[in-house]
Amino acid sequence: MHSPQIKKLIDLFSEFPTVGQRTAARFVFYLLNLSKEEVQEITSEILKLKEKVKICQACFKSFEPSLNDQDLKLCEICRDATRKKDLLCVVEKETDLMPIEKTRKYRGLYFILGGTVSVLKKEGLKKLRIKELLIRAKNPAIKEIIIALNSTTEGEATALYLERHLKPLNIKTTRLGRGLPLGAELEYADEETLSSALEGRK
Amino acid sequence: MHSPQIKKLIDLFSEFPTVGQRTAARFVFYLLNLSKEEVQEITSEILKLKEKVKICQACFKSFEPSLNDQDLKLCEICRDATRKKDLLCVVEKETDLMPIEKTRKYRGLYFILGGTVSVLKKEGLKKLRIKELLIRAKNPAIKEIIIALNSTTEGEATALYLERHLKPLNIKTTRLGRGLPLGAELEYADEETLSSALEGRK
Amino acid sequence: MHSPQIKKLIDLFSEFPTVGQRTAARFVFYLLNLSKEEVQEITSEILKLKEKVKICQACFKSFEPSLNDQDLKLCEICRDATRKKDLLCVVEKETDLMPIEKTRKYRGLYFILGGTVSVLKKEGLKKLRIKELLIRAKNPAIKEIIIALNSTTEGEATALYLERHLKPLNIKTTRLGRGLPLGAELEYADEETLSSALEGRK
Amino acid sequence: MHSPQIKKLIDLFSEFPTVGQRTAARFVFYLLNLSKEEVQEITSEILKLKEKVKICQACFKSFEPSLNDQDLKLCEICRDATRKKDLLCVVEKETDLMPIEKTRKYRGLYFILGGTVSVLKKEGLKKLRIKELLIRAKNPAIKEIIIALNSTTEGEATALYLERHLKPLNIKTTRLGRGLPLGAELEYADEETLSSALEGRK
Repeated sequence: MHSPQIKKLIDLFSEFPTVGQRTAARFVFYLLNLSKEEVQEITSEILKLKEKVKICQACFKSFEPSLNDQDLKLCEICRDATRKKDLLCVVEKETDLMPIEKTRKYRGLYFILGGTVSVLKKEGLKKLRIKELLIRAKNPAIKEIIIALNSTTEGEATALYLERHLKPLNIKTTRLGRGLPLGAELEYADEETLSSALEGRK
Repeated sequence: MHSPQIKKLIDLFSEFPTVGQRTAARFVFYLLNLSKEEVQEITSEILKLKEKVKICQACFKSFEPSLNDQDLKLCEICRDATRKKDLLCVVEKETDLMPIEKTRKYRGLYFILGGTVSVLKKEGLKKLRIKELLIRAKNPAIKEIIIALNSTTEGEATALYLERHLKPLNIKTTRLGRGLPLGAELEYADEETLSSALEGRK
Repeated sequence: MHSPQIKKLIDLFSEFPTVGQRTAARFVFYLLNLSKEEVQEITSEILKLKEKVKICQACFKSFEPSLNDQDLKLCEICRDATRKKDLLCVVEKETDLMPIEKTRKYRGLYFILGGTVSVLKKEGLKKLRIKELLIRAKNPAIKEIIIALNSTTEGEATALYLERHLKPLNIKTTRLGRGLPLGAELEYADEETLSSALEGRK
Repeated sequence: MHSPQIKKLIDLFSEFPTVGQRTAARFVFYLLNLSKEEVQEITSEILKLKEKVKICQACFKSFEPSLNDQDLKLCEICRDATRKKDLLCVVEKETDLMPIEKTRKYRGLYFILGGTVSVLKKEGLKKLRIKELLIRAKNPAIKEIIIALNSTTEGEATALYLERHLKPLNIKTTRLGRGLPLGAELEYADEETLSSALEGRK
């Protein structure tokens, strides 16, 4: 029903995270109602993103070097001399790093894994930076690797997978503590969460 | 916390319908993880959209003329000789036109109003194509205008507003029938809907 | 884990509409925390319900005759001389009758069917008052039977079933009108509802 | 619209936890459709509940003594010689005790507080068994009191209140550990929960 060009763009927007066909169509009609200048601003900013923003070679976080620093290979966290070099926190994706930074409780370094892997779909493994993580973990400065993945089935499966691969390195690995989150009611808490909350009482 | 270029693009994506800051950030990181070629495909398709897709001068629907038809002013529905010229269906936005076409019950023409207006925020009026609708409605071929707006408070207020402006033209205006939708339970139906369902029984 | 008496009562409360085991347990602990007098008030009012409230022999609605009217067989609606005797509205259950009364648009009589029947579970048929409805429908005063069931799959299947059984009586049967309910958005309307809304425009 | 007896019972059922007027009406019509014998079974079981089930004088949990044990003052948990006497777990209500038992990780004793208190509505304090808790806490066998309340605003306010009152007794008090529950995603975790999850890593 949509014209070929609209259909083409709906398909591209449908690949964006959280976007389905219906929302993608709304994006296209939104763009159609913008002026030519407004649309050009969007496309030019998207292109500038790829030029200006680099990926840190140590932790794979994005960062934007200033104009006279275009040779920088490391992000602002990896370059920060005040951060502890003995703690490495592995997160799934860059948006998971921000809530940890916001707690202001963590002063170590990060490693962005690039995804999680479900038990069933093993092909997801390819996009994970396992090899890069193992190289990084061999750095003798690192004393503990915190596996900070979602406590979902996929996150758990990935954590187990990481632990198995990190084990031969003889490095201490930890996981985020389980317990009752803010706002939780005992009556609806699952047994595993409640067990952890009881053990971790303080 | 985000770099300036990322921040800039998050702000632009936040203007997209249904998109908030968090989703906008996910879009930016999605783009960052694409290859340069993939990103260029997206921006080039967005730019092509504005070049290839035109807005119908009669109904304001988008359409994509073929290469040797670049002078076309009317969309495929307005040009379709088999469509009834005496029925005009006013919808709020282009995505509202599609479900009506899918019913295969309507064979008349359309008019895309461009928005609705709330009782409180009168400034919304400016983006509505009232003047264009009045010109169109004066076409003597048109015998009935179906006001097919949402039955929300905004849709109702806009329908009343249209009816008031169309009245001097002495043209028949109708609204979509009220009643129980598929899957509804009497116990939870509001009085107005149930009244209409009783009156419209058949 | 619960004591036998608590378990027994949880099972009885679990049979109440909308109540599961967890809510049933909360009811039991609520009762345990009431005083003996408060609990006795509840049980005595439940027993009085069965004594005082009768079921109308014509429409099967509940009604409460006054002390000197204990021989009454008909509810206040069936006895109301101002109600139209030529319209009979079939509803699934007594709670469906109230929203229709609240519209103040219907002045005919009712018939409470006692349930709906799913296509799959034919045993549900037994609790339906089909035989009683057929007897009632043969009353020559009745000119139209409005089948006012939910527009759910079960309601639709039951309506079809009623229509098939009423057909030999040669009496006009109607169903509630379909259309957009109050507050609906075109974009999310299903095709059948939208078709009816277009046909039923006015 | 409902008859007086039905109205009366709807009001009584509306006092049950989680029940509103609409659900209460459904309960009444459910009872009306039961046979006299079925209704009498319900009322007789409710009355037996108050006779058979007692409230433990130590922890305020309900329990059901056998016929030849009618003088029992303590529930089966408080009488269980294998339970640790040095741990006391304070919960809000009896339904909160069950999920803790189900973890099979806790072998101490309980105390049912009888409610929580919001910061704003101080009158809620009256129904709390504060005095009884203080008496219980003075038992020298008890070495630690675990305040196992919901991590909601009300639960937190009540926990603070309890800690303030228990402080003069010089007894160790702990709270359930905070952390990520099963199935949680970092991106949606609040800062406090994530801080606790980081600190409690293992």
